[in-house]
Amino acid sequence: MVFAPAYLDYNATTPLDPRVLEAMLPHLRERFGNASSRHEYGRHARRAIDEARQQVAAAVGAHPTEVVFTSCGSEANNLFLKGAGGCMRAGVLAISAIEHPCVREPARQLVRGGWQLREITVDAQGRLDGEDFAAALVAGAKMVSVMLANNETGAIQDVAALVMRAKPFRVWFHTDAVQALGKIPVNFRSLGVSAMTLSAHKIGGPLGAGALVIDKRVELAPLIAGGGQERGVRSGTENVAAIVGFGRACELAVSELRESARRMRRMRDRLEAGLIASGARVFSTGVERLPNTVFFALAGIDGETLVAHLDRAGFAVASGSACSSASPEPSRTLLAMGVDPVTAKGAVRVSLGRSSSDEEVERFLDALAETVTRLKQMAAIAV
Amino acid sequence: MVFAPAYLDYNATTPLDPRVLEAMLPHLRERFGNASSRHEYGRHARRAIDEARQQVAAAVGAHPTEVVFTSCGSEANNLFLKGAGGCMRAGVLAISAIEHPCVREPARQLVRGGWQLREITVDAQGRLDGEDFAAALVAGAKMVSVMLANNETGAIQDVAALVMRAKPFRVWFHTDAVQALGKIPVNFRSLGVSAMTLSAHKIGGPLGAGALVIDKRVELAPLIAGGGQERGVRSGTENVAAIVGFGRACELAVSELRESARRMRRMRDRLEAGLIASGARVFSTGVERLPNTVFFALAGIDGETLVAHLDRAGFAVASGSACSSASPEPSRTLLAMGVDPVTAKGAVRVSLGRSSSDEEVERFLDALAETVTRLKQMAAIAV
Repeated sequence: MVFAPAYLDYNATTPLDPRVLEAMLPHLRERFGNASSRHEYGRHARRAIDEARQQVAAAVGAHPTEVVFTSCGSEANNLFLKGAGGCMRAGVLAISAIEHPCVREPARQLVRGGWQLREITVDAQGRLDGEDFAAALVAGAKMVSVMLANNETGAIQDVAALVMRAKPFRVWFHTDAVQALGKIPVNFRSLGVSAMTLSAHKIGGPLGAGALVIDKRVELAPLIAGGGQERGVRSGTENVAAIVGFGRACELAVSELRESARRMRRMRDRLEAGLIASGARVFSTGVERLPNTVFFALAGIDGETLVAHLDRAGFAVASGSACSSASPEPSRTLLAMGVDPVTAKGAVRVSLGRSSSDEEVERFLDALAETVTRLKQMAAIAV
Repeated sequence: MVFAPAYLDYNATTPLDPRVLEAMLPHLRERFGNASSRHEYGRHARRAIDEARQQVAAAVGAHPTEVVFTSCGSEANNLFLKGAGGCMRAGVLAISAIEHPCVREPARQLVRGGWQLREITVDAQGRLDGEDFAAALVAGAKMVSVMLANNETGAIQDVAALVMRAKPFRVWFHTDAVQALGKIPVNFRSLGVSAMTLSAHKIGGPLGAGALVIDKRVELAPLIAGGGQERGVRSGTENVAAIVGFGRACELAVSELRESARRMRRMRDRLEAGLIASGARVFSTGVERLPNTVFFALAGIDGETLVAHLDRAGFAVASGSACSSASPEPSRTLLAMGVDPVTAKGAVRVSLGRSSSDEEVERFLDALAETVTRLKQMAAIAV
């Protein structure tokens, strides 16, 4: 059986780039050592990790010693918030109102430990409200976490400018750059953040590897304590193959960024034009966005239903983010942008990637038009 | 270049079983979906995880809903201690004196949160001291963590008996079964524990997957909070390929246990006879041990030096556990057993596995004899 619905859900996860898999395979075969072992198998694993650390650091303009490998982006976000938070006296923690649950939930856990959580509001386009941000700083925020690009709308925050504004205040500034990496240039230094989260599987790398890039002045209590791997900040036998794949994926993501972003933007623009022509409302078009993401709603059409019908028609798209797909709630991002709950529940995300094609986009628009017509007929009959 | 020193360090990590890799490969290629996605790619990933969960549960006689997948054994140990500890008022926590650092270190972190840590002593053979254990219960221990088999000596604790003794006390009993799985029968129900840690890469599975098998009455605060995967106890996009590999490895470990244990025991006995003939002191021979592990010391020979020489001669063995190999300290396990620090620093571990052979054992004994003679000559010259 051929299993190949058109995959248009790259923000949820990406296919593993065959060149990345090739780099990983030796470590899934004869190069299987534990990187802490003091024999040839172990030393080889250690060297492979060192090389990957350089690749990841180079991709975001950081120093290799600033890279802490984790098992995923969620772990890196939790490590920053709870790890740094655990080394300070509880105070004010400020996050944007549109953070991923893996920032929002650990932030809520900190509240139980005495922290005061402020959610910085966003405007109708999904951009951070500058006054509310300033108010959080004045209120004495010790930690700030603002994502670089939103997973649903693709809206990009001007993190560098926010960091500049935060400079006079003593604050650790973290950014979740998981969705940004590989789609726009991401530079740890020019953003000026204290910490940044990355994930391999969003850029053609494998599941099982993420990183917290972190200024070494930030003290961190380990989330996973033990053998003392990763400078004592993240214990556990290193997942060598995944880390090697992450390194290679970073290298490819950066070297192919310009061309890949150009291709995706062209397809995205065509897709968006088609959607708007068919009456869709596309979100965050008024701000800088990732070149691959379109988040839209069609009046009177439920997102869940639309996604299910498109799935049957051979198109894999998302209704909201995968992480919250288990419970079909209205998009939190859209609610924070002031979109009404019915529209927010009806939204659908298309996210393109390396293997997307113009032909796929055209086919998708045709299938969407057909599905919508059918759904409207069904609704008419039901009424 | 052929890269094939004899690998005699299975307790550090194991080569990935080719049959396991085969099960994983589709998920590293066309079956790459995010298990939370509500389309065909996602549903397929979800089904694969469900199947792996059944395989892992079946391997240890647990119910699939009791299996929480993590990224590694260290994470599972941390999740139990900090996750359960975080849901209770601080009290007494008892662990054995020979636990792996990924139990000992999170236990120490709990001390900063107000917990009182008791380390239960062991006897000269590495078995838990019954009286000290009873004293910890009487002192009101709320959580107990005792490993099923030690990573260095291979000594097995009678966890089922300890659980029985703990029954009258209200205590969550956890066992780290990472080294036991695949080497001796491991059964969650017959041990009677509340929680148990497993790891894939110690049983021919991949790095990147572990599990906490846990009685659902134990309340757990997530270590990694976010999208709510794994019943909300472990967020983060599931590492499908690694989880599938873990499931397959569990299936193989159990179906081949009897034959594999028999083979390993035969080789281990031969190895041990050779070592004892050459004057080695072998630890924990007086108690039940894993069939694959020999931990020994040779008077006047430093373990680090011996391991380095054997490495050059083409044999990968360990001086202490890999996790603490970065700092050549005397073995904590041996110190707890009352072994003097010089001997404890000189100890070497050989751990056999699926691809070990009788011929390898003979070659190892020859190489060891040669190396020891050389080291003694060097020492004589130096003096």
